[in-house]
Amino acid sequence: MRLLSGHPQARVVYVTSRKLAGKPVDSVHPHLRGVCSLSFESPSAKEVAEKCDVVFTAVPHGTAMDWVPDLLDAGTRVVDLSSDYRLPVDVFEKTYATKHKAPREAVFGLTELHRQEVAKARLVGNPGCYPTGATLAVAPLAAAGLVDRVIIDSKSGISGAGIEPTETSHYPNMAQNVIPYKLTTHRHAPEIKQELSRLSPGIRVSFTPHVVPSVRGIQTTAHVLAKDSALETIQDKSALAKIYQDFYKGSRFVRMVPGVPKMSSVRGSNFCDISFEPEKGTDRLVVLSVIDNLVKGASGQAIQNMNVMMGLDETTGLWFPGLAP
Amino acid sequence: MRLLSGHPQARVVYVTSRKLAGKPVDSVHPHLRGVCSLSFESPSAKEVAEKCDVVFTAVPHGTAMDWVPDLLDAGTRVVDLSSDYRLPVDVFEKTYATKHKAPREAVFGLTELHRQEVAKARLVGNPGCYPTGATLAVAPLAAAGLVDRVIIDSKSGISGAGIEPTETSHYPNMAQNVIPYKLTTHRHAPEIKQELSRLSPGIRVSFTPHVVPSVRGIQTTAHVLAKDSALETIQDKSALAKIYQDFYKGSRFVRMVPGVPKMSSVRGSNFCDISFEPEKGTDRLVVLSVIDNLVKGASGQAIQNMNVMMGLDETTGLWFPGLAP
Amino acid sequence: MRLLSGHPQARVVYVTSRKLAGKPVDSVHPHLRGVCSLSFESPSAKEVAEKCDVVFTAVPHGTAMDWVPDLLDAGTRVVDLSSDYRLPVDVFEKTYATKHKAPREAVFGLTELHRQEVAKARLVGNPGCYPTGATLAVAPLAAAGLVDRVIIDSKSGISGAGIEPTETSHYPNMAQNVIPYKLTTHRHAPEIKQELSRLSPGIRVSFTPHVVPSVRGIQTTAHVLAKDSALETIQDKSALAKIYQDFYKGSRFVRMVPGVPKMSSVRGSNFCDISFEPEKGTDRLVVLSVIDNLVKGASGQAIQNMNVMMGLDETTGLWFPGLAP
Amino acid sequence: MRLLSGHPQARVVYVTSRKLAGKPVDSVHPHLRGVCSLSFESPSAKEVAEKCDVVFTAVPHGTAMDWVPDLLDAGTRVVDLSSDYRLPVDVFEKTYATKHKAPREAVFGLTELHRQEVAKARLVGNPGCYPTGATLAVAPLAAAGLVDRVIIDSKSGISGAGIEPTETSHYPNMAQNVIPYKLTTHRHAPEIKQELSRLSPGIRVSFTPHVVPSVRGIQTTAHVLAKDSALETIQDKSALAKIYQDFYKGSRFVRMVPGVPKMSSVRGSNFCDISFEPEKGTDRLVVLSVIDNLVKGASGQAIQNMNVMMGLDETTGLWFPGLAP
Repeated sequence: MRLLSGHPQARVVYVTSRKLAGKPVDSVHPHLRGVCSLSFESPSAKEVAEKCDVVFTAVPHGTAMDWVPDLLDAGTRVVDLSSDYRLPVDVFEKTYATKHKAPREAVFGLTELHRQEVAKARLVGNPGCYPTGATLAVAPLAAAGLVDRVIIDSKSGISGAGIEPTETSHYPNMAQNVIPYKLTTHRHAPEIKQELSRLSPGIRVSFTPHVVPSVRGIQTTAHVLAKDSALETIQDKSALAKIYQDFYKGSRFVRMVPGVPKMSSVRGSNFCDISFEPEKGTDRLVVLSVIDNLVKGASGQAIQNMNVMMGLDETTGLWFPGLAP
Repeated sequence: MRLLSGHPQARVVYVTSRKLAGKPVDSVHPHLRGVCSLSFESPSAKEVAEKCDVVFTAVPHGTAMDWVPDLLDAGTRVVDLSSDYRLPVDVFEKTYATKHKAPREAVFGLTELHRQEVAKARLVGNPGCYPTGATLAVAPLAAAGLVDRVIIDSKSGISGAGIEPTETSHYPNMAQNVIPYKLTTHRHAPEIKQELSRLSPGIRVSFTPHVVPSVRGIQTTAHVLAKDSALETIQDKSALAKIYQDFYKGSRFVRMVPGVPKMSSVRGSNFCDISFEPEKGTDRLVVLSVIDNLVKGASGQAIQNMNVMMGLDETTGLWFPGLAP
Repeated sequence: MRLLSGHPQARVVYVTSRKLAGKPVDSVHPHLRGVCSLSFESPSAKEVAEKCDVVFTAVPHGTAMDWVPDLLDAGTRVVDLSSDYRLPVDVFEKTYATKHKAPREAVFGLTELHRQEVAKARLVGNPGCYPTGATLAVAPLAAAGLVDRVIIDSKSGISGAGIEPTETSHYPNMAQNVIPYKLTTHRHAPEIKQELSRLSPGIRVSFTPHVVPSVRGIQTTAHVLAKDSALETIQDKSALAKIYQDFYKGSRFVRMVPGVPKMSSVRGSNFCDISFEPEKGTDRLVVLSVIDNLVKGASGQAIQNMNVMMGLDETTGLWFPGLAP
Repeated sequence: MRLLSGHPQARVVYVTSRKLAGKPVDSVHPHLRGVCSLSFESPSAKEVAEKCDVVFTAVPHGTAMDWVPDLLDAGTRVVDLSSDYRLPVDVFEKTYATKHKAPREAVFGLTELHRQEVAKARLVGNPGCYPTGATLAVAPLAAAGLVDRVIIDSKSGISGAGIEPTETSHYPNMAQNVIPYKLTTHRHAPEIKQELSRLSPGIRVSFTPHVVPSVRGIQTTAHVLAKDSALETIQDKSALAKIYQDFYKGSRFVRMVPGVPKMSSVRGSNFCDISFEPEKGTDRLVVLSVIDNLVKGASGQAIQNMNVMMGLDETTGLWFPGLAP
């Protein structure tokens, strides 16, 4: 809602919630007071589709599949922020231990990697937050055939865990802590593997996430282990810089930065900042990326996808810097 | 448990919980691993009283009164950390909108102000966290008859709100925020009024609490407005220093400090650090205090009271500095 | 720069710094990468004035007075973010213990209180951060003649202390702390007194600031003590609501909110959220306000003033919600 | 000083500082008020050695070597907290780009790995904070010959960077951020390599540190890649548990914990909590450890070493739980 309120080509028609139906949006989200005068509603898929060109389905996994088919059938486009349309059905069902009730053709909405397919899509599966930062960090190297294996160690702000208070999100538990979780089994791992394998079949991918005392932001440290054939290339910083530059040509939200990218540089924005550093004399290349998990890792990228789907400039309504400090 | 584990004269016999009965204490509180080998149990008051010299009742208000009479009747001493035995029955009932089922004679356990009564008490009502820091800050001035009115503005770490995750304690809501609450009606206000009025009948007391992004600690800013007769005295820093020094003679946990007292100086410890600064040419004197809400504001003071009740040196097991930084 | 980058009627011509002259702005402020392609320059006042309609002087106090006269003489308008043009010369000199070298006619740029004067001004003294939040909270009550005295207890994020690392801003010292400072002598107090006294001669104002573990934001708790003649009015919430509503009619950045205003609701935005709560049966009314100290408390209000000076709608480039959570 | 103040067998004779000589210790460290009545002094090595059985040299690298020889010659024992006596001279000189002026025989003071040598040592080089947590996590696996390679990704509280305010430690820069640094060249890496190679010659070790918004604590995620011969073993959790249990038999400060170890469980204490989780069907084993960087990672371990050197029980003065929450 924050992002759409400043989008010159978007008008929000419905904000839906069964639970909150009837309540003004700003009574739940007081920062929108004066900016958004809508109330939550609980319309049918058909009603929504009649009035809307695009629908963002921001619901739990397993629920999007109840809505998406009706929306598509009624003729609207959908950007789904759940995980229902990101993975092949078999991978989805295994990962989420959930039967998929309504598979549909969908594009994986990591815009920088699938721009042309997104442009033609009726249904986009908006990527998870971790896969966005991790994949953008490693994709150019994978596409260049340099990577044997990558061990991804990500640190996320706790807002990624949602709006419901939990034991982990309880301030006394989260403050002054770093909490690794789902060490080898996080549900976002298959998305990363899918995207990197597409670019570099056979690549080995490991992923371990952590939550850190921050509201927003994901900092990813990708420990890239080079193929034997790439040992020289990964030590050549200019060659690497060119690989990234070529790969992200035309991708204005990806910024290659000198030094270490900071979460504060992208906070509230749709940017993904990346840098890298080879370890002298070894096969390891450390690649760093940062995103705002709630923007480039969720709603910002969803709008970026909407822009592409609707033939707008990709940056429309999203071209503003982060809130630093 | 942390504090008692280092107390040379205390041995913990029971850690009780109906809900957790049977579970090892360190499975719930992993920092105690190796230090505490007890499991939660759910004994009767009688069983407890048979084996224990002192019982700490750390239960919600309204629940302590179900236990305390049986414990006292069975012959043990009680330090009650709930609010059931801090106030006169009528004030309690009005403040908590709860009928008091079992009034008993109790001493208000702000040790520095009631040491001799605590020494003889069988039941001590351990003070609330805010009243401890606020009352210690103002008591010497009130006792000296200098105060017409005091407006107390307190800022507390969120641990004071307990172990249950809530909307307020949700990290994304608490981080980078300051949240005033119960602006004019906090249930701790009557405790502060009771203690200061005892020392200075007619004193006017206002209290507004806030939670801040900290786990532990309460910082209190007391805006003291002097009586007309005290306008000169409150400008005389040496006179004030002497008033505090005399009042807290023998109270080793109260430290008068130069400069501004810091929460980090008392974190994890039983100290209350205090300083003051008169506003030139006015009737206002700013008094500052800090405590650790979970130690001097709760369990530390409870042990301090136990020490006094059992005839031990007041500082036994509590004489260690805070964890700074 | 963040705010101006999205302002549809503003184009940044110069970003000046002697020290950083020649460096790209985004090398110092990496969040601006891709958004701002300027470099720091070190032009003369005359060069600046020739090319710019408005100049923001964001320099230390005592330095603005070296620049402002030349800028004004060269024909440009100035919004000064230092403290050089906020106070009458005698008050300035006393408060800052600095001789004023170049007094000029200036308007105090608390836009909501001086909109018409700002519209005609050539020089605006942009208010301090604390005075903005504190004055907006109390002004309507002062103007209505209800206030005998107000004790203002403010809690600010540490970004207000500037970009230079200090002992206080050192993370291990600031985290998990609340640090009161300049308890009775903060330099912003005269600004608050000036504005409230203008509305209510004879009003007594006390001010004590604190820093809290937050980057941005000021939360102000104003303990308003009513005049004897206003004891009934301050208990009448509808009457008070109407007073605020009338006073801030047409002031779109001031939002009267139900419940407690939160720093997170205004973070990154130009809003000031306000609410109030009378204490039953007493003369005290607690008024709360929150602002982002770096936006409404500094650069946002500066742009708001620029808008008014240039005849633009006051909200141009500033009409977006805060970044929550 | 905090730890020594509660040590039953230690008495602090000198607290030295040239810069602060003459000042009471508690004027610089206000949490020690009432607990420590010493003042900083600036004695000669000889004066110190005459009165002290053990000296802790907590000085910058390059400075310890100016003091240690004289202290040893004068007959006292030394625990050096600088990096001067942790590495072989050639590795030290390469790592720190500093000529070593006074090499001496020293024991690497990771107590759990060198207990018997420490017992006989006159000079102990107390390990760096990162090496302590990282080495303890991986050592049992390395000793068992299971590890081909380990990629260590550590996250540290900012207190590890010292007491001097810097751009990184500036609260607005550190809060809500995760900052990787010295991605492939941190000076602690050689200590980790030295210790693990001793246990498993040929092991490959990579290390990347980060600072996170916490005052204290280091959370280490060690991505262990197993030797081909160990693929089955690393999937066998009971076998691994036994390996750790055997290795740390008698090491009371190392706690193998179920679930994920938390920084809050060891805060302020000398414990190192460890757990592990194999990735199904791969060669990767994730090992986690947490320590308090200022205790087990610095002064706590120094005292642990002192205890062992002086023939005391290793846990003397250190057997207390962390401060949680």
